[in-house]
Amino acid sequence: MKGEKIIMGIDPGTNLMGYGVLRVVGNKAEAVALGVIDLHKVSDTYLKLGHIFERVSGIISEYLPDEMAIEAPFFGKNVQSMLKLGRAQGVAIAAAIHRDIPIHEYAPMKIKMALTGTGAASKEQVAGMLQRILKLDAEQMKQHFDATDALAAAYCHFMQASRPESQASYRSWKDFATKNKEKVKGLKG
Amino acid sequence: MKGEKIIMGIDPGTNLMGYGVLRVVGNKAEAVALGVIDLHKVSDTYLKLGHIFERVSGIISEYLPDEMAIEAPFFGKNVQSMLKLGRAQGVAIAAAIHRDIPIHEYAPMKIKMALTGTGAASKEQVAGMLQRILKLDAEQMKQHFDATDALAAAYCHFMQASRPESQASYRSWKDFATKNKEKVKGLKG
Repeated sequence: MKGEKIIMGIDPGTNLMGYGVLRVVGNKAEAVALGVIDLHKVSDTYLKLGHIFERVSGIISEYLPDEMAIEAPFFGKNVQSMLKLGRAQGVAIAAAIHRDIPIHEYAPMKIKMALTGTGAASKEQVAGMLQRILKLDAEQMKQHFDATDALAAAYCHFMQASRPESQASYRSWKDFATKNKEKVKGLKG
Repeated sequence: MKGEKIIMGIDPGTNLMGYGVLRVVGNKAEAVALGVIDLHKVSDTYLKLGHIFERVSGIISEYLPDEMAIEAPFFGKNVQSMLKLGRAQGVAIAAAIHRDIPIHEYAPMKIKMALTGTGAASKEQVAGMLQRILKLDAEQMKQHFDATDALAAAYCHFMQASRPESQASYRSWKDFATKNKEKVKGLKG
């Protein structure tokens, strides 16, 4: 079991929160879980946040991840949507913080680049590449793209982690922001 | 001790997070804690979120609040700021959710109105009114406005809770949003 590591990926949204769990042994990775937390049916905002906290905590308890990778959002939405998205993400992040799990954040373009070699890849292309690399079965491929996107975030972190010099360059969201000022204009601290 | 209730108020920001704890016995309220969580010195985003979770959890452990009142933010900032604010709030909310503490959200204007009778009151006026109502001492009045704003949120909830028919009309953020569509344009769910 030398070098085994569990990486949990999350694609945090307000209506669907995708998750994917990757088991890494040495330089080999396999998908052990893939799914979405469906929040459409929960209409109350606080019940929704409670549901996210419980479900993410439950997945953590089940798979005991060593690290968490999150897909950073685009900044194209309006301020109300961003606040809601931030709260949903904050609750998911808190579930990891509560268990002392380090969190790594990757921009969507970086995840696509890591998997397909192009930052402009579609969600279908990302899912297709994951299918080939991780030998996902038909049942797993039926999952929503939020699930495969989450698994892609975990895979991106696996690749970063196996190249220490690259990992150092995007250690955290803050770090990403500092080193990509042109992409995250107006961001402070 | 009949009818004793502890209400914790929070004014959640990304650099300063104010808190105030109100002890209510019957129809009388007194301030038992007032302060700010200073996040200026924590530069890393995830360390900051971790700090918020730990500090809010610590305050909850110390005062064992029955309910939490949060000041809802204005939607005037840019999308990056709103995402950061949302994450900070989400982490604070998760600390309450983790302890099964119900959360109530009040718009700044509603809090000012509840305390001073006008939604256009300044932070100084809100603090001054709290000083008179709760007999805050000089030391408490030295606190940052984020602390008195948080206490004001708790006091607003206390007033709402003693008027059941009003409380029902702003039960949650969702509820507030549904009933104040003109104030929260673009907000869904």
